Amino acid sequence: MIIQVINPNTSQGMTETIASAARAVAANSTEIVAVCPSQGVPSIEGHFDEAIAAVGVLEQIKLGREQGVSGHVIACFGDPGLLAARELAQGPVVGIAEAAMHMASLVATRFSIVTTLPRTLIIARHLLQQYGFEHHCAALHAIDLPVLALEDGSGVAQEKVRARCIQAKREDGSGAIVLGCGGMAALARELTAELGLPVIDGVGAAVKMVESLVALGLSTSKHGDLDYPIRKNMTGAFQHLN
Amino acid sequence: MIIQVINPNTSQGMTETIASAARAVAANSTEIVAVCPSQGVPSIEGHFDEAIAAVGVLEQIKLGREQGVSGHVIACFGDPGLLAARELAQGPVVGIAEAAMHMASLVATRFSIVTTLPRTLIIARHLLQQYGFEHHCAALHAIDLPVLALEDGSGVAQEKVRARCIQAKREDGSGAIVLGCGGMAALARELTAELGLPVIDGVGAAVKMVESLVALGLSTSKHGDLDYPIRKNMTGAFQHLN
Amino acid sequence: MIIQVINPNTSQGMTETIASAARAVAANSTEIVAVCPSQGVPSIEGHFDEAIAAVGVLEQIKLGREQGVSGHVIACFGDPGLLAARELAQGPVVGIAEAAMHMASLVATRFSIVTTLPRTLIIARHLLQQYGFEHHCAALHAIDLPVLALEDGSGVAQEKVRARCIQAKREDGSGAIVLGCGGMAALARELTAELGLPVIDGVGAAVKMVESLVALGLSTSKHGDLDYPIRKNMTGAFQHLN
Amino acid sequence: MIIQVINPNTSQGMTETIASAARAVAANSTEIVAVCPSQGVPSIEGHFDEAIAAVGVLEQIKLGREQGVSGHVIACFGDPGLLAARELAQGPVVGIAEAAMHMASLVATRFSIVTTLPRTLIIARHLLQQYGFEHHCAALHAIDLPVLALEDGSGVAQEKVRARCIQAKREDGSGAIVLGCGGMAALARELTAELGLPVIDGVGAAVKMVESLVALGLSTSKHGDLDYPIRKNMTGAFQHLN
Amino acid sequence: MIIQVINPNTSQGMTETIASAARAVAANSTEIVAVCPSQGVPSIEGHFDEAIAAVGVLEQIKLGREQGVSGHVIACFGDPGLLAARELAQGPVVGIAEAAMHMASLVATRFSIVTTLPRTLIIARHLLQQYGFEHHCAALHAIDLPVLALEDGSGVAQEKVRARCIQAKREDGSGAIVLGCGGMAALARELTAELGLPVIDGVGAAVKMVESLVALGLSTSKHGDLDYPIRKNMTGAFQHLN
Amino acid sequence: MIIQVINPNTSQGMTETIASAARAVAANSTEIVAVCPSQGVPSIEGHFDEAIAAVGVLEQIKLGREQGVSGHVIACFGDPGLLAARELAQGPVVGIAEAAMHMASLVATRFSIVTTLPRTLIIARHLLQQYGFEHHCAALHAIDLPVLALEDGSGVAQEKVRARCIQAKREDGSGAIVLGCGGMAALARELTAELGLPVIDGVGAAVKMVESLVALGLSTSKHGDLDYPIRKNMTGAFQHLN
Repeated sequence: MIIQVINPNTSQGMTETIASAARAVAANSTEIVAVCPSQGVPSIEGHFDEAIAAVGVLEQIKLGREQGVSGHVIACFGDPGLLAARELAQGPVVGIAEAAMHMASLVATRFSIVTTLPRTLIIARHLLQQYGFEHHCAALHAIDLPVLALEDGSGVAQEKVRARCIQAKREDGSGAIVLGCGGMAALARELTAELGLPVIDGVGAAVKMVESLVALGLSTSKHGDLDYPIRKNMTGAFQHLN
Repeated sequence: MIIQVINPNTSQGMTETIASAARAVAANSTEIVAVCPSQGVPSIEGHFDEAIAAVGVLEQIKLGREQGVSGHVIACFGDPGLLAARELAQGPVVGIAEAAMHMASLVATRFSIVTTLPRTLIIARHLLQQYGFEHHCAALHAIDLPVLALEDGSGVAQEKVRARCIQAKREDGSGAIVLGCGGMAALARELTAELGLPVIDGVGAAVKMVESLVALGLSTSKHGDLDYPIRKNMTGAFQHLN
Repeated sequence: MIIQVINPNTSQGMTETIASAARAVAANSTEIVAVCPSQGVPSIEGHFDEAIAAVGVLEQIKLGREQGVSGHVIACFGDPGLLAARELAQGPVVGIAEAAMHMASLVATRFSIVTTLPRTLIIARHLLQQYGFEHHCAALHAIDLPVLALEDGSGVAQEKVRARCIQAKREDGSGAIVLGCGGMAALARELTAELGLPVIDGVGAAVKMVESLVALGLSTSKHGDLDYPIRKNMTGAFQHLN
Repeated sequence: MIIQVINPNTSQGMTETIASAARAVAANSTEIVAVCPSQGVPSIEGHFDEAIAAVGVLEQIKLGREQGVSGHVIACFGDPGLLAARELAQGPVVGIAEAAMHMASLVATRFSIVTTLPRTLIIARHLLQQYGFEHHCAALHAIDLPVLALEDGSGVAQEKVRARCIQAKREDGSGAIVLGCGGMAALARELTAELGLPVIDGVGAAVKMVESLVALGLSTSKHGDLDYPIRKNMTGAFQHLN
Repeated sequence: MIIQVINPNTSQGMTETIASAARAVAANSTEIVAVCPSQGVPSIEGHFDEAIAAVGVLEQIKLGREQGVSGHVIACFGDPGLLAARELAQGPVVGIAEAAMHMASLVATRFSIVTTLPRTLIIARHLLQQYGFEHHCAALHAIDLPVLALEDGSGVAQEKVRARCIQAKREDGSGAIVLGCGGMAALARELTAELGLPVIDGVGAAVKMVESLVALGLSTSKHGDLDYPIRKNMTGAFQHLN
Repeated sequence: MIIQVINPNTSQGMTETIASAARAVAANSTEIVAVCPSQGVPSIEGHFDEAIAAVGVLEQIKLGREQGVSGHVIACFGDPGLLAARELAQGPVVGIAEAAMHMASLVATRFSIVTTLPRTLIIARHLLQQYGFEHHCAALHAIDLPVLALEDGSGVAQEKVRARCIQAKREDGSGAIVLGCGGMAALARELTAELGLPVIDGVGAAVKMVESLVALGLSTSKHGDLDYPIRKNMTGAFQHLN
């Protein structure tokens, strides 16, 4: 089984962080192919960035499908381009935000989310509403540092994530914490151990979700509104998506 | 006042239909500049098409802002790229789906929606949920013809829209009908007269919404999550969006 | 175009404040006729006051309709008598609470409300639920002064409104503020400038909404539950509403 | 214990129907005082009628309070003026719509509603939303006859109610039926027996609710937003409400 | 009329507290039979305890039905086994959580809940959602003492309940308080008097609800999903439930 | 990894059906231990049956925990005793209803449910609400045959399931179908192939969910409301649960 893990931004460092997190939990028989778009935005911190990144996600979905991968992970907490990707893909496509939220709802009655910049909170709020997890989320927190601070090697952002998780455990009355950025993937296991409650990384969660769907013989439904895009004459920079 | 009306698909015919509908209701002092992306998809009939179109919308928002337009309309019923466009724009941005739904909720307790292909119904459902109008929508209908059938000159699609509106009036228990495609804009006024209930076109509604916001001195909030995108080094086909 | 702006309370001072706010944003071709009931309550600060005021609103709607006005605004933040007024009216009827909430949802992902007495908060909560904007409202605030304090000339209430808006901007994580009383209409523009985010007055918003509906050829649906009231033999003090 | 049962319309016949239904279930120690407004509308079939009737309800609440009644019932299925009445009253106030819905939710997982004119369905819908019973209502039906048809002595309306209840039992998958008009009160017991499922009249339900609240020593909270109306100088036809 | 009041835990002390609260409000013609399971858990403080207690509730429902009681009260704030009990019972069954919430919604626009251990808050949250009262609950509080602390004679728990109620009144903006444990039943009347707002005990509320349903000739619907359990060969410790 | 798959009813045939479905999808390294309670109900078709079965589930959870299993599946579509089981368990616990719904929401925008008796539909409705999937479920269907008809060897029930799935595909506008009974587990794969859309069995889905959680190092949170039950002196038939 080959799972394509798509980092929707163009940061090589984050692609590697995500690849490691994916490989750490994948089954022995699963090969992780971690990619990022050849062009796009270096980090995703708002709806504009997401709109750009979604096209890169679609490019990679198309490539992955041509390469015969079994399924796809969209490894950015806003799940950019998720439904579009499902239309384009033959196999299952799982976003890391939905994967983390689903998993959290299985191990706790309510969870907290810790993410990067405050301006991305609205994206998480909209996803909670769309996925149906509004009542399962006790609180949302932002560490107020940009996404790439997680890649600067200083550890400052990681420490802020840790501090916020501790605060969330103490104050929110929730039983689990969802890490709200693909760049935080490496932190989940040690924070779970330190805090004594499930701290959930969506990258690993999504990889296991795709593995599960493939094992169950389930793939994106091609009956109805997730059917393949109707063929059209796409022009300009989008021709390669034809 | 200059209002930029963006047809998110690349169909010239539909851009003209939309431009006419916009001009028909604009104030004398309002200039309508109708545009469509230079590259993208010829029609929008699913999430994939929307993801492509969103980039074209952003390109036009950027151009419009550089030209000093007062506000922007996104003239596709899925409101593709709406929140991203609000981040990028200085002036107000209004989508035709939200505009039509807002207007409908002011003249009826519940409304019906008539759109094109069944696969686009899910987009309307998600917008109803996101905008808060779930309880105001009594039913959704699809004529089961592609968007561009509205531009083929045969009148078949228009007649199907009319038939569905009549059926909706008879069966849904709703007081107004929202036309769920920019290409239906020309039909609203005559169907309103024929059916004896408000049949609402979002293009006109959105133009009046933008005029209203500008007259009120209101524009997209730059405090918080709709602030301008954080400057990044966008690469490849997206460089022109820097 | 003549728009009848109805102040549902009997305060002349507030009627003038509202009239000014309406005229400040109306199109050149729009005539504002500001009225208040000949009998009723001097201010509206609860459900009881609203029930009394609703009858005054209906009296004025009837008069306005007989005078051939194009549309009506109900200029009290509880939108008293709104659906009853829509039944009685031929033209569109827009309440200032709904108008402000609609506009706020177009320029921000979430908004705050600042109103007068704490006991009126429940009215705003119920409207948010009925109109579908619950998820768009981040917080509600009351300055804890009665409505007519806004008309006492001291400026104390106005300063309290300003202070609460500043606090809301700092604490609520919302992108816009809705002023929750017709008597605050004069403050919107300067607070918008001072605070650097949209501060929205419903009076102006409702005037533009009515202008928009008229320009679009849309009026209250007379198909279904907003049809004219069934003629009945009303007795006593209500005979004039026959 | 004296319970004031207020028929919000001015129909003597319906007041007597309601009084009988109230007396049929009241405890021996409870005296039912059935009243209707001295002026108002002869039947209530829309928001306009409700707005007029609400003032009549308030007049009667004031009289009842002066007479020292223990509690009040608002005996029209739209619960007109309910929250205003709670502000004005010292004792508990219960509407027949809420009472019937509460009772129905105790004996069935989901219920159906059978009411008079289709245009009143929206009132029931809004109450379901406001009271929190949306998920407990499986379907709403209208017999498409005016309220006073229940008082014309022909039995036609009663037969239509019966037929709709039978249809609702067969088709809705609900376990109970709520009668959506005070004028249907006399039918509940025999339909319950004939259909073999609970058919609920709100008049009786509300009387028992008021009796219960009084026995529990509970009355309308005067802490917060249901406190007595702030004293104001009401003018004209409303002076008697001062 | 005989009402069986079932304390779902095996604590004799609490059964007596509950019996007293029930008798204090029951009509003269109502006989209260207070029981508790012969086997089970001494207090209920989580889902596990509830699952055990539910079987005890069913045993008692079966016994009560065989004894010909008119109706049943489940006197634990989680309403354990409520729908199962409704299937098994012939008469009406009312839980004290639902009863208290229903009553609270009749005397206040929003209420607060004060319960025992924080881990039981999730049970109250789920009930609010299931019963439809989410929007009517302003806040939930836990005194952080186990249920049986209410029976230790020291009065410490009672004083903590009182302190939390005072705090809730001051901070929550709600008009009534619901006591979230059968063991708090004795406190309602005095706290109502001391705090000057309705403090509601579910035991008394449920007794009045059952009396009301019986007086109205209403019982658990046997049409549909609350019909008697399908007869099966139950084995082992459950044979006596056959 | 050992996963304990608990059939909550006492039917050996169904336990074997469920065991086969679990083994068919489990990883090579996963051992499936399929069990059912030693005492309880032979099938689960309502809330009463569920309450009995929940105790059997808890007995098995306790045994499984003592045997050191890695996680647990509750293999009845009502997920009986789920939260109680999570309190008692050390490892993760997943119900087949939630597992199927989660999986369905990953491969389709909306799904249909096909279950056995109409009286169990309310259980599915409540779970949809509790889990947050109300908006993701397009329709619910019952074949109107008891659970054990799936075990009678005639194939009649299986054919009815198939017919309903075909009807659901044609009429519901949903992209996937959830099989609403553990006894239908064997049908999923062939119906998926025949119908050309995902037909989802919860047993397999839950097994993969548990495998995923274990692989991710995630288990039921013991911080907060899913912590182990507070130790109590359980009496009678429940002593073995101490």
